[in-house]
Amino acid sequence: MIKKTKQPLSSELLPHKSFQQRLADRRRGSSTLVEQEVKREDLGFGTAINDASSRLVNKDGSFNVVRAHQGFWNQVNLYHTLITMPWPKFLSIVFTFYISSNTLFATFYSLLGYENLVGLDKVTPNTAIGRFMGAFFFSSQTLTTVGYGHISPMGYWTSALAAVESMFGLLLFAMATGLMYGRFSRPVASIRYSTNSVFAPYLDINGWMFRIINQRTNQLIDVEVEVSLSRLDRKPDGSLYRRYYPLKLERSKVSFFPANWTLVHPITDESPLYGCTAEQLAESDTEFLILLRGVEDTFNQAVHSRFSYRYDEIRWGQKFKPMFTATVLAGRATLVDLDQLDETIPAELN
Amino acid sequence: MIKKTKQPLSSELLPHKSFQQRLADRRRGSSTLVEQEVKREDLGFGTAINDASSRLVNKDGSFNVVRAHQGFWNQVNLYHTLITMPWPKFLSIVFTFYISSNTLFATFYSLLGYENLVGLDKVTPNTAIGRFMGAFFFSSQTLTTVGYGHISPMGYWTSALAAVESMFGLLLFAMATGLMYGRFSRPVASIRYSTNSVFAPYLDINGWMFRIINQRTNQLIDVEVEVSLSRLDRKPDGSLYRRYYPLKLERSKVSFFPANWTLVHPITDESPLYGCTAEQLAESDTEFLILLRGVEDTFNQAVHSRFSYRYDEIRWGQKFKPMFTATVLAGRATLVDLDQLDETIPAELN
Amino acid sequence: MIKKTKQPLSSELLPHKSFQQRLADRRRGSSTLVEQEVKREDLGFGTAINDASSRLVNKDGSFNVVRAHQGFWNQVNLYHTLITMPWPKFLSIVFTFYISSNTLFATFYSLLGYENLVGLDKVTPNTAIGRFMGAFFFSSQTLTTVGYGHISPMGYWTSALAAVESMFGLLLFAMATGLMYGRFSRPVASIRYSTNSVFAPYLDINGWMFRIINQRTNQLIDVEVEVSLSRLDRKPDGSLYRRYYPLKLERSKVSFFPANWTLVHPITDESPLYGCTAEQLAESDTEFLILLRGVEDTFNQAVHSRFSYRYDEIRWGQKFKPMFTATVLAGRATLVDLDQLDETIPAELN
Amino acid sequence: MIKKTKQPLSSELLPHKSFQQRLADRRRGSSTLVEQEVKREDLGFGTAINDASSRLVNKDGSFNVVRAHQGFWNQVNLYHTLITMPWPKFLSIVFTFYISSNTLFATFYSLLGYENLVGLDKVTPNTAIGRFMGAFFFSSQTLTTVGYGHISPMGYWTSALAAVESMFGLLLFAMATGLMYGRFSRPVASIRYSTNSVFAPYLDINGWMFRIINQRTNQLIDVEVEVSLSRLDRKPDGSLYRRYYPLKLERSKVSFFPANWTLVHPITDESPLYGCTAEQLAESDTEFLILLRGVEDTFNQAVHSRFSYRYDEIRWGQKFKPMFTATVLAGRATLVDLDQLDETIPAELN
Repeated sequence: MIKKTKQPLSSELLPHKSFQQRLADRRRGSSTLVEQEVKREDLGFGTAINDASSRLVNKDGSFNVVRAHQGFWNQVNLYHTLITMPWPKFLSIVFTFYISSNTLFATFYSLLGYENLVGLDKVTPNTAIGRFMGAFFFSSQTLTTVGYGHISPMGYWTSALAAVESMFGLLLFAMATGLMYGRFSRPVASIRYSTNSVFAPYLDINGWMFRIINQRTNQLIDVEVEVSLSRLDRKPDGSLYRRYYPLKLERSKVSFFPANWTLVHPITDESPLYGCTAEQLAESDTEFLILLRGVEDTFNQAVHSRFSYRYDEIRWGQKFKPMFTATVLAGRATLVDLDQLDETIPAELN
Repeated sequence: MIKKTKQPLSSELLPHKSFQQRLADRRRGSSTLVEQEVKREDLGFGTAINDASSRLVNKDGSFNVVRAHQGFWNQVNLYHTLITMPWPKFLSIVFTFYISSNTLFATFYSLLGYENLVGLDKVTPNTAIGRFMGAFFFSSQTLTTVGYGHISPMGYWTSALAAVESMFGLLLFAMATGLMYGRFSRPVASIRYSTNSVFAPYLDINGWMFRIINQRTNQLIDVEVEVSLSRLDRKPDGSLYRRYYPLKLERSKVSFFPANWTLVHPITDESPLYGCTAEQLAESDTEFLILLRGVEDTFNQAVHSRFSYRYDEIRWGQKFKPMFTATVLAGRATLVDLDQLDETIPAELN
Repeated sequence: MIKKTKQPLSSELLPHKSFQQRLADRRRGSSTLVEQEVKREDLGFGTAINDASSRLVNKDGSFNVVRAHQGFWNQVNLYHTLITMPWPKFLSIVFTFYISSNTLFATFYSLLGYENLVGLDKVTPNTAIGRFMGAFFFSSQTLTTVGYGHISPMGYWTSALAAVESMFGLLLFAMATGLMYGRFSRPVASIRYSTNSVFAPYLDINGWMFRIINQRTNQLIDVEVEVSLSRLDRKPDGSLYRRYYPLKLERSKVSFFPANWTLVHPITDESPLYGCTAEQLAESDTEFLILLRGVEDTFNQAVHSRFSYRYDEIRWGQKFKPMFTATVLAGRATLVDLDQLDETIPAELN
Repeated sequence: MIKKTKQPLSSELLPHKSFQQRLADRRRGSSTLVEQEVKREDLGFGTAINDASSRLVNKDGSFNVVRAHQGFWNQVNLYHTLITMPWPKFLSIVFTFYISSNTLFATFYSLLGYENLVGLDKVTPNTAIGRFMGAFFFSSQTLTTVGYGHISPMGYWTSALAAVESMFGLLLFAMATGLMYGRFSRPVASIRYSTNSVFAPYLDINGWMFRIINQRTNQLIDVEVEVSLSRLDRKPDGSLYRRYYPLKLERSKVSFFPANWTLVHPITDESPLYGCTAEQLAESDTEFLILLRGVEDTFNQAVHSRFSYRYDEIRWGQKFKPMFTATVLAGRATLVDLDQLDETIPAELN
């Protein structure tokens, strides 16, 4: 999705470079077009997405991209789908698959003759449905290798089918149980982001801030956050194209992440947000893209989390309320109240 | 837990910068408040924890933080809890779950009628309790898929319940056995830290030192140690706030860690510990936070370990006794005596 | 395969250094032979592969190297082979192994006497083949632990053999099911490369370009690409030797890889491709070696992919057609058409 | 094992710094003892191992260190031991454990009364040994969950014991099968090092060289090698202590490792080996320590390998014979003959 452009990218919709920087640029001499293009920030979305009404990153961290002609097998990508789908859906699929397999094998057994399933008549009624259900139950006992034996296969073909089914069952349940445990043990950065970001006073200037907490009991260490701003800028010919700017953070890495963390982008004169109004952000379809990387404590596995804030998810002139009340457990531990993640209070901007 | 402050952070409780450094700072010109704030060390605990009686990192490496309103499921975090709990507790839970599941299913079978469990009367007495226990044993044979068949299900509903139970059993035991093996194979940095750290002579100055050993037979490679000092400093307005200083180590990384390692922070005039007395460390609630990272040899997995020493866990004017006695196995291997980890001998400070 | 050469490597078949660079080299003073050798790029293939008709990296990413005297066990490398072979082949092997094991154990049971398998006569005809097949089915029921019990072992030796077989079966199926799941869950960078690379206009110069897409639904992040050019250069004595040049890319790393990515090597006067014609590339047996590294989203695992383009897989004066049609799903998401990966249109070179 | 020394480390047994370097050192002004100590190379073995007859790293890559008072459980470290032991030993342990468990449970069943194992008399003779063996076989059928049912438990206690055993069996076999697969799938850098290293001519000087091959079919990528020299140097007071020097390599990293690689340390005047004779290397107990890191291709897992050469494993005035014969498969692939790894031919030193 990365498109090359022949025009020099010199004019922007919004100011984002200090005077000093521009001067320094000029002093360095004429940079060629290639150098300019190499320096241009690109997250991998490209410049052509200039439709102001679609967001780049969805609230669940997935990319807002649809692929045509992906091919059935690539689109399905069984493993990824089965690992990430919700538990109820996953268990329904396992159960459905179990029922279907048993129905299929019961049909096979019926074709080979019910008389080859010894003991069937003692388990279910001797009717068409009863016999089929008996074969179904025999199949389930074979598939799960429980094998009571009150129904048992007789003759070459029925015995062979049972032998194949039990092997098939072992391989099949290996997948199901592997997926069960894989889902259960998958390391995830269970980060909760504040519903809104804020424009708040910061030291003697202002800052754009959002707040995160680790929802889980397990620890994250070496947490690193990257924030990029994406917005539509205007080329000299007046056409819109999407640009990306890395946002400098007051602190982008912490060794420990015991509770909450307020991330601050100080709006200095070098910030692409310097001097911007809420209207300008809306007009240029501004989106803040967040990528968090960390290490999960239990198995030392890398985890990450994506999130985005759009221009309409910023509260102007609000700051976050502190989340901890040191007095309650004073002398024993620090108390943090996770319910206060979204709490903000008005604060006069500088 | 990272709080922003509007006041410049210029005055400290204890000296920690050489005169040369301060001069260099001044020569570089007026750094803005933002630059100062960006440069401030923060491990992720924030500045607001100024209650002198609570420690930040517990002796087992966990953080001394309590979270309110975490939500039941996030608080429980089954996987993490089940992987890290002690073995007896884990096995009790598995056993309890097994008993409970069988009790539940036995109840279901009893509701569907004991007469549908053929052979029950030959296994247990034909009393209320006997029949229930028979159903319980049938359930256990189904859940584990052992399926002897001397008790066997009859009729649609009991057969269907047995089919469901055997599938449920396979999925359930997949979790239990996955956890068993996950616990067994989890890579841990089994580092033992000396009970106390020491203030000992080091070359022509003094140093703060602690000693570690790898308790296990498996090797750790590329071991890296980070030490931070956390203490309460005083703002110009007299209020206390918590500050963090990285401590430079004589050697912070080794490729091999065959036996013991004494980590040394040389107390030069650039050290935040320069000129400090035991009383000052106590007064400022000093804590040394240690983060060790390494690679476990067997599966090449990253491991880490956290630890902390408080001001009252320092022995002044003591140095560690050497741990190896080269004479015993001379000519064949180097001998290290792990029992001597905590042994110190008096040493005159410089 | 890295060979050392005694002659200074000063003359090249094709120009690849700007005049400024050579001047700078000279000004730095006489670099010794060692310095020159250390600076020489080598990917690990060495300089001696000067046979122009063999390619270094095959289309599937494997190396085009044959090893003699590798030793049977090292050559086979069961695990790697079983994990990477196609599914039909893997399942055939599992099935064949299952049949063979059962045949082997059936033979053992027959040697211990069919009379020790109680119930055999009720399952299969009482003929030589019938009895053997019965033993075969009993073996399959033991190996998979389904154990119906309508055939059951009697006496010491047959019982002992059944006990051994069931243990053997558990270990065996552990391998089979482990491999099943290992194959299923193996993280792969399912990258599709455009069939051809192109020489296309790029800004005010030209560039060598290829295009890639992620075929799967799961995301890749932090994708990094390294491209090297390999070709035969001529030594002063006229003999050919293989040299490697890293190719600078317009952009070699993206944080997100939501859809397609066109990689561009701008042909500036510092490029080893500067001024080259199609004939020169063919003459010098030019091959472009590509190494892609990324992180797979589901389990945060590192993945990589190798590919190569040869001189005859370049289209001159063609550029890639854009792959997305923003209009279709406008306002909801970005649409990318994967079928257009290979589409190029003529473009006049600069 | 890292010991601090109070004396400045100024005099060495062997020359290892160029005159220019020493001059530069002096010009930088008086470095304090701390700075010197920080700069001293230490791999983690410390300076006190001055017994010339013991080697630091064994031929299999393990460290030549013995630990006293390690504590039974830490010493055993079951998981690491079970994963790394040879296959025959591992399978014997699994088999022994299976036999022992069955014997134990058979004893329990005998204590609860053989009459509670229905069908026992039909399987084994009705003697003391026969009944015990019957219980043993019943136990094995329960432990592996094969559960034929021709022997079945009766009554509360025997049924309960069978229920416990089948659960115990599932957990137990989970460990065994997990270990089976863990052993099978463990990524190892199967590097073979040439038996000897050589002192050979290299360009216009000499070099110390060794050669490695990847024995397996699976690929290693991003292979990096670190070589350190360890030898006894003499302090000003005449006492010996062990010092470590990193050795610069001609090339220490390759992206691809398709076949063999000759690693070269060029003996420039900056090398600690400059001007050394075979006698001096023997006298100072010189050992070359090698650490190789790479990424295994199948699962993208990090692997490493350790090795060491001692002074008596160097061939002077020999160079390695090329390992590939390009002519055999010319035009199709490059052929490498792994049997030639150790082949050297005489070469006059510069």
